[in-house]
Amino acid sequence: MRVGYVQTAPRFGEVERNLCRVQALMSIHEKVDLWVLPELFVSGYQFVSRAEVKELAETIPDGPTTQQLIRLAQQQNSHIVAGIAEKKGGYEYNAAILVGPAGLLSHYRKLHLFAEEKEWFSPGNTPFPVSSIPVTDSLGKSFVKIGIMICFDHLFPEAARTLAIRGAEIIAHPANLVIPGYGQLTMKVRAMENRVFTVTANRIGTEARTEKRLHFTGESQIISPCGDLLVSSANDIEDVQVVEIDPALARNKMLTLNNDLFADRRPEFYFH
Amino acid sequence: MRVGYVQTAPRFGEVERNLCRVQALMSIHEKVDLWVLPELFVSGYQFVSRAEVKELAETIPDGPTTQQLIRLAQQQNSHIVAGIAEKKGGYEYNAAILVGPAGLLSHYRKLHLFAEEKEWFSPGNTPFPVSSIPVTDSLGKSFVKIGIMICFDHLFPEAARTLAIRGAEIIAHPANLVIPGYGQLTMKVRAMENRVFTVTANRIGTEARTEKRLHFTGESQIISPCGDLLVSSANDIEDVQVVEIDPALARNKMLTLNNDLFADRRPEFYFH
Repeated sequence: MRVGYVQTAPRFGEVERNLCRVQALMSIHEKVDLWVLPELFVSGYQFVSRAEVKELAETIPDGPTTQQLIRLAQQQNSHIVAGIAEKKGGYEYNAAILVGPAGLLSHYRKLHLFAEEKEWFSPGNTPFPVSSIPVTDSLGKSFVKIGIMICFDHLFPEAARTLAIRGAEIIAHPANLVIPGYGQLTMKVRAMENRVFTVTANRIGTEARTEKRLHFTGESQIISPCGDLLVSSANDIEDVQVVEIDPALARNKMLTLNNDLFADRRPEFYFH
Repeated sequence: MRVGYVQTAPRFGEVERNLCRVQALMSIHEKVDLWVLPELFVSGYQFVSRAEVKELAETIPDGPTTQQLIRLAQQQNSHIVAGIAEKKGGYEYNAAILVGPAGLLSHYRKLHLFAEEKEWFSPGNTPFPVSSIPVTDSLGKSFVKIGIMICFDHLFPEAARTLAIRGAEIIAHPANLVIPGYGQLTMKVRAMENRVFTVTANRIGTEARTEKRLHFTGESQIISPCGDLLVSSANDIEDVQVVEIDPALARNKMLTLNNDLFADRRPEFYFH
């Protein structure tokens, strides 16, 4: 199957422009089974007021961005994971969705909020989601399990672990990472320790809407279940990358002839 | 406080020689509060029969290696973590101990056995241990919490996480790592995600007692709670390294003004 990500430099608040830019980059490649887009990819990241969050947040699945992504998935016969500011019942969430031709498949609200996000968003209240998507290749139609986590979830090993225990073969990781090298390194280890593919779609560029200047670190990447870097991007240019992967690799948890990384777990000795 | 490790090339079965070599390297440094030695540091690693394991395994704490390490700790007024093949009630374990002038403080039996270890050892049946050791510096006497895990435990994030939840400030990690770069990378992430110090004492050299040639990867290392590499060794020479650390850094779990990495955990959403 073909998996890709888009790395963009969203402009704060320019929703239509940001969505257009992502679509333009996605159109470079055809027949991509799964796309991953960055966290908060249409709104931008650095909010300065609650009113601004409420203005830019959208409902899921009725809001315009979710609906446009579903249309795109239908046109391209693809599936898309993307990060969106969500509004629901007077609360706002830093959310991510998985959509396909059939509509909304997964909906996740970020469980671990980073820094000032705690001022603008309510903490997530949905489980780490895993959904199956259909993939058609030379061997016929099969299903691949997609898990979702967002950005700072990377530093909590329980996030990727929970997704892998629930069966995720590919972890889609929309991100707005700001600490150089941090999330890229931890996601490599998440792939290794869970023997899953990880797709981190990070953004680039700078936001300086307050005295705190945020520089986003790019270096989006796709990692194999063995920890190999299959593709990555620079830290300062918009980019789109697609790779061919065999998701069956993520179903083989054997590190050695004697070590199945999941059968070897000793949960009776783990604190949580 | 001063923390160090010894990286040696044990010769299989040459218990006295291997212990002597470690003592010689340790004697280079004075006033070390905590030493970490490799996994199975007196026996060697590649057993070829159960009889051989039974011959080289020792009782804890009555066996000669534990007793000699206690004497060494008394002479140097130090604490020592070391990996030992243990025998107990007809079973053998890949174990590690923490000893000090007062005797045995911690005793751990490896929970995640690697490759052929499953043929020679019984799986561990002891919790991940955390013990306090006294440290005297210019500010007076204080206590520092030492956790222990062994080698392949590195690939299971629950190991370091459990130790950190139990209060470990320094994770001592005796190892006989054979996959280049693997454990060194994961231990860096274990330090970052738990904001603890990690001390990996790995061995070097080759064992080829069967047709399977094992090459041990050295690169012992000490990592700070921020993920900084404080010191490391080459992959092909015996070495001893000691660094001065401030264990209070491991008590501060704040990554940002808003993010305490332990308060931020959402265990109600974690699978285990």
